[in-house]
Amino acid sequence: MAAALKIDLNCDLGESFGRYSLGEDAEIMPLITSANIACGVHAGDPSVMASTVSLASQHGVKIGAHPGFPDLQGFGRRSMGLSPQEIGHFIHYQLGALEAFTRMAGRTITHVKPHGALYNLAVDDLVIAKAIAEAVTAYDDKLILVGLAGSKLVQAGRTYGLFTAQEAFPDRSYLPEGCLMPRSQPGAVITDPEAIAENALRFVRDGIKVNGDELQINTLCLHGDHPGAVRNAQKVRRRLEDANVVICPLSQIL
Amino acid sequence: MAAALKIDLNCDLGESFGRYSLGEDAEIMPLITSANIACGVHAGDPSVMASTVSLASQHGVKIGAHPGFPDLQGFGRRSMGLSPQEIGHFIHYQLGALEAFTRMAGRTITHVKPHGALYNLAVDDLVIAKAIAEAVTAYDDKLILVGLAGSKLVQAGRTYGLFTAQEAFPDRSYLPEGCLMPRSQPGAVITDPEAIAENALRFVRDGIKVNGDELQINTLCLHGDHPGAVRNAQKVRRRLEDANVVICPLSQIL
Amino acid sequence: MAAALKIDLNCDLGESFGRYSLGEDAEIMPLITSANIACGVHAGDPSVMASTVSLASQHGVKIGAHPGFPDLQGFGRRSMGLSPQEIGHFIHYQLGALEAFTRMAGRTITHVKPHGALYNLAVDDLVIAKAIAEAVTAYDDKLILVGLAGSKLVQAGRTYGLFTAQEAFPDRSYLPEGCLMPRSQPGAVITDPEAIAENALRFVRDGIKVNGDELQINTLCLHGDHPGAVRNAQKVRRRLEDANVVICPLSQIL
Amino acid sequence: MAAALKIDLNCDLGESFGRYSLGEDAEIMPLITSANIACGVHAGDPSVMASTVSLASQHGVKIGAHPGFPDLQGFGRRSMGLSPQEIGHFIHYQLGALEAFTRMAGRTITHVKPHGALYNLAVDDLVIAKAIAEAVTAYDDKLILVGLAGSKLVQAGRTYGLFTAQEAFPDRSYLPEGCLMPRSQPGAVITDPEAIAENALRFVRDGIKVNGDELQINTLCLHGDHPGAVRNAQKVRRRLEDANVVICPLSQIL
Repeated sequence: MAAALKIDLNCDLGESFGRYSLGEDAEIMPLITSANIACGVHAGDPSVMASTVSLASQHGVKIGAHPGFPDLQGFGRRSMGLSPQEIGHFIHYQLGALEAFTRMAGRTITHVKPHGALYNLAVDDLVIAKAIAEAVTAYDDKLILVGLAGSKLVQAGRTYGLFTAQEAFPDRSYLPEGCLMPRSQPGAVITDPEAIAENALRFVRDGIKVNGDELQINTLCLHGDHPGAVRNAQKVRRRLEDANVVICPLSQIL
Repeated sequence: MAAALKIDLNCDLGESFGRYSLGEDAEIMPLITSANIACGVHAGDPSVMASTVSLASQHGVKIGAHPGFPDLQGFGRRSMGLSPQEIGHFIHYQLGALEAFTRMAGRTITHVKPHGALYNLAVDDLVIAKAIAEAVTAYDDKLILVGLAGSKLVQAGRTYGLFTAQEAFPDRSYLPEGCLMPRSQPGAVITDPEAIAENALRFVRDGIKVNGDELQINTLCLHGDHPGAVRNAQKVRRRLEDANVVICPLSQIL
Repeated sequence: MAAALKIDLNCDLGESFGRYSLGEDAEIMPLITSANIACGVHAGDPSVMASTVSLASQHGVKIGAHPGFPDLQGFGRRSMGLSPQEIGHFIHYQLGALEAFTRMAGRTITHVKPHGALYNLAVDDLVIAKAIAEAVTAYDDKLILVGLAGSKLVQAGRTYGLFTAQEAFPDRSYLPEGCLMPRSQPGAVITDPEAIAENALRFVRDGIKVNGDELQINTLCLHGDHPGAVRNAQKVRRRLEDANVVICPLSQIL
Repeated sequence: MAAALKIDLNCDLGESFGRYSLGEDAEIMPLITSANIACGVHAGDPSVMASTVSLASQHGVKIGAHPGFPDLQGFGRRSMGLSPQEIGHFIHYQLGALEAFTRMAGRTITHVKPHGALYNLAVDDLVIAKAIAEAVTAYDDKLILVGLAGSKLVQAGRTYGLFTAQEAFPDRSYLPEGCLMPRSQPGAVITDPEAIAENALRFVRDGIKVNGDELQINTLCLHGDHPGAVRNAQKVRRRLEDANVVICPLSQIL
């Protein structure tokens, strides 16, 4: 009998800021196994970080850092010309800031997933990918580095000896070569719950083909801030469970 | 024979930000025993923090966190109406961010000294003083809390069981009751090197009288961003050494 | 026959920021006569300002500046110790920034209403109230200054020869002496639509008693970011119309 | 007899921020004819803007806006992926903010020179160049647009019917095709006062060759924040005066 398929479900959370509330964190948290928490630079603030760590702890969800560019107005989604060294320092800053809250909650940071433009630049740009991987390694070489399946980021993580997780997005359209369709293009974000759930199961079963390579997917990104986010997450989860996929954190997969 | 008098010399450092350079950190660092490093909120940024921690390490100077209000334009010197809980979260954030850099440099944070308006509010406001002391205790109860001699901050630190250090400012004028003359008043900042050195020695020998209580001083604050900062620091140091005062970090005093 | 009662309905709008959406501006705009638009300092950003000015123009709503403290995370609701001169400079900055957008849209700024803590401090603090009134006068002495009915801000505006508008909040509880109950107290914000509409009509008919003085109300503040904001605004509007109150901008009232 | 050669001398000023002082504005201002004033986004703040406008007025120096990217820590020198529309809105915001101060001082904005990465991106990127030119035109089509000699920015300005000024940098090294050597390369910034003065005179006399085209230079950029900035500016000025070059604002040249 074949071993059961396993998948981690992750979501970007803690992206509220002061008066500004974003995402249905309380509803999404019970549905996932890994929370990527914003660290007060592209989103989030110290109070939001404290409450998001607390929420993750209540649900036994693994906590990851979700560092981004210093661009609150652009939500970290605009590329910025930081040097590799600046990127490293900003990642260290954000990791440390988050760890203050995880440590006091008796938790640890298990993984790092760059946010927005930092994540996207690291898909193709090896210099940036290496800067991220090197920064994570220097901070704690037991951390799991999460990147787009087939990205330079995953490649760089492996080069530095990190555990790496290949990620896929069931609610995003992919270009034929295996990379994400930019958000600026129509159809980039999929809203039909059935299609999202179908993509999720397909990614888990078949993996994804990037530049011709068949890649196994370790984690699926669910979105907490889209309309219908909770319903979509529930649907994905149910579809996977119905197919006997084991939903579990990355530490039980990698 | 009486035991030698001991004093810690501290300075607020790492207050540059991006293109903006502030303070003569490289020249001051060799002259002090404790560096209070800004944490990227009222001043400093991740790259500045990294290089300041490195500089402190080269000179074997103890590293403390210097958390402040989220007000870069006001340099953390303007009072802000944060709730006690918000103050706590901001202190945790800043402590964690700094610890990323100290840990990677093989160093530890030894003390916490609030900056600017946060420091000044904690002189008289027990609610704020307790918020700070509680936050420090929750983060790490081995940290030394530095406050103005005779302040509510020192009192709160003791209530929470923290080591506390009574601080005095040789280049600031004091009001008769033992608190600092506000910077907005003429004469608040003393610029004559002789007077500064004289104050330093007097504080170490005689302590300071606050609201009628004679208090022993544990640490003197030197300024790194005043005109003549380096010369003043050298003068203070020499005057103390000439009087056989032992200049050493707080861990050897408290 | 007595002249019809007149009232302006104002709302704070344009408070979204980047990815963060706040308030139901599109639904509220048709219901009001004066829009107070955030100016990118405590809330709002250049793109939000452009679209909010455009929205106000579509509905023929008067445009006012809504300047606040430089504290995005606190949404301008935390007091900050700015000097009177700094307050003036920040008001000028925000007025100018907004006027870029109104001028290009063929509109003008008609009024100024300080936001959050700046508004609240100017209720009792004459130094701050004067700083605001002086700044507005220096920028354009035809601008209407909006303040809490009976506040020092209205008093200062009159001293400087500005048109002033007395404002009341139908969805906020008042303390007996005529000032707002702080948001931190339970019951400070009224959520029952009937009670809000009733307050609105009462304020228009009877005015409000502040420190013993009966004051006529010129403008009512509706909130665009509360749950049920649109419904409440509709209800207030209908109640006033049913009572034959004329809803019109301040320029037709003062 | 040939008409005298004319040149404008411009400098980026008002780049201090809060506690952070940058540039020798008071010493440079008497030496120039056009001041490009930072607008509180990549540098500068409302109080700095007020005092810089005042300083320019005392010396009869023309005032231009110096808008940049929203990146204070990077001083606007890091490229950012803003959309053309966002760029336009940010330029409008900054122009308006500055105009608050110029108008109250009885002055007008005469020109616009983008800062840092925004300036550099507009050298080659026509989409960005057009976004800037369109934004300036929409705000006030009498404004002079200043760009690197031979840049897409100057080209776009002409397309939109703006007055444009070709700028050269006597203290920067040029690549053979006529563009600036990036600051990251060694030798990019020239520090020898003689060489700077010599470049200045050469640019005025011979113009500059960009991609094979001989271009006349209308304005020279002096730097106010380099070591020796004042001495360099004096030297440039004297060299030009000794050669009977008329130093005057752009309005007398274009």
